[in-house]
Amino acid sequence: MQQQLSVITLGIADLARSRRFYCEGFGWTQVFANEEIAFYQMNGFVLGTWLTKGLEGDMQRSGLARPGAFALAHNVATAGDVQKVLDRLAQFGGRILRPADAPLHGGMRGYIADPDDHAWEIAWNPAWPISPEGYVRFAPAG
Amino acid sequence: MQQQLSVITLGIADLARSRRFYCEGFGWTQVFANEEIAFYQMNGFVLGTWLTKGLEGDMQRSGLARPGAFALAHNVATAGDVQKVLDRLAQFGGRILRPADAPLHGGMRGYIADPDDHAWEIAWNPAWPISPEGYVRFAPAG
Repeated sequence: MQQQLSVITLGIADLARSRRFYCEGFGWTQVFANEEIAFYQMNGFVLGTWLTKGLEGDMQRSGLARPGAFALAHNVATAGDVQKVLDRLAQFGGRILRPADAPLHGGMRGYIADPDDHAWEIAWNPAWPISPEGYVRFAPAG
Repeated sequence: MQQQLSVITLGIADLARSRRFYCEGFGWTQVFANEEIAFYQMNGFVLGTWLTKGLEGDMQRSGLARPGAFALAHNVATAGDVQKVLDRLAQFGGRILRPADAPLHGGMRGYIADPDDHAWEIAWNPAWPISPEGYVRFAPAG
């Protein structure tokens, strides 16, 4: 099967609150929104934010828990950008989990929870190239 | 900021069990693996699977819960592929949450939990194009 992921859908409680974090904090634009779901066109896939009840109904599974055992990451271009982005996102409804610091394997990273408690790592990883279109490639640490 | 997500990292309990689902079930290949983490090069970003303790340590947050309030999706080329992929993944450690059926807005979809209880939607969405490289684009339903 194609090594491809099409959508990441995050369960959210409040569309306006989530939109503020993603559209004003990250500065991203929505490609679609209605009264229960919003989509963002990302680098090769789609990010969805959906009222949790809708997601649970579609999945036929209730009791989705927080914080979930996963993290999303947004890599930035310089070490200094990491704390700047964390601080900006904190102004738009995010809650910093770990301020920027340098991991043993190199680079720089911190973590912030979005308004629905989904964790984002903000990282500077000089080894992994990012194309102008935003496509990210794995590469071994220097 | 670039509308870009670099990594999705899933907390897992057992590397071999997770590898079986992703490498034998989906048929994907790892680009890196050690005794606590494995990476898959995806369509424009990287999928990571990391022992949950490692992820919690990096995030400086304990008590990550399951099932988390999110879903991943893998879109397939035909309606008939949806149940086929669900059945295949169930043979490699997945647990079907919802068998394939047709949602009101069109297409076909079902859900399966990976061995760590992370939900994958397997979907046929004829409106959303997928490039040969696996890049997926949002488009309004027909």
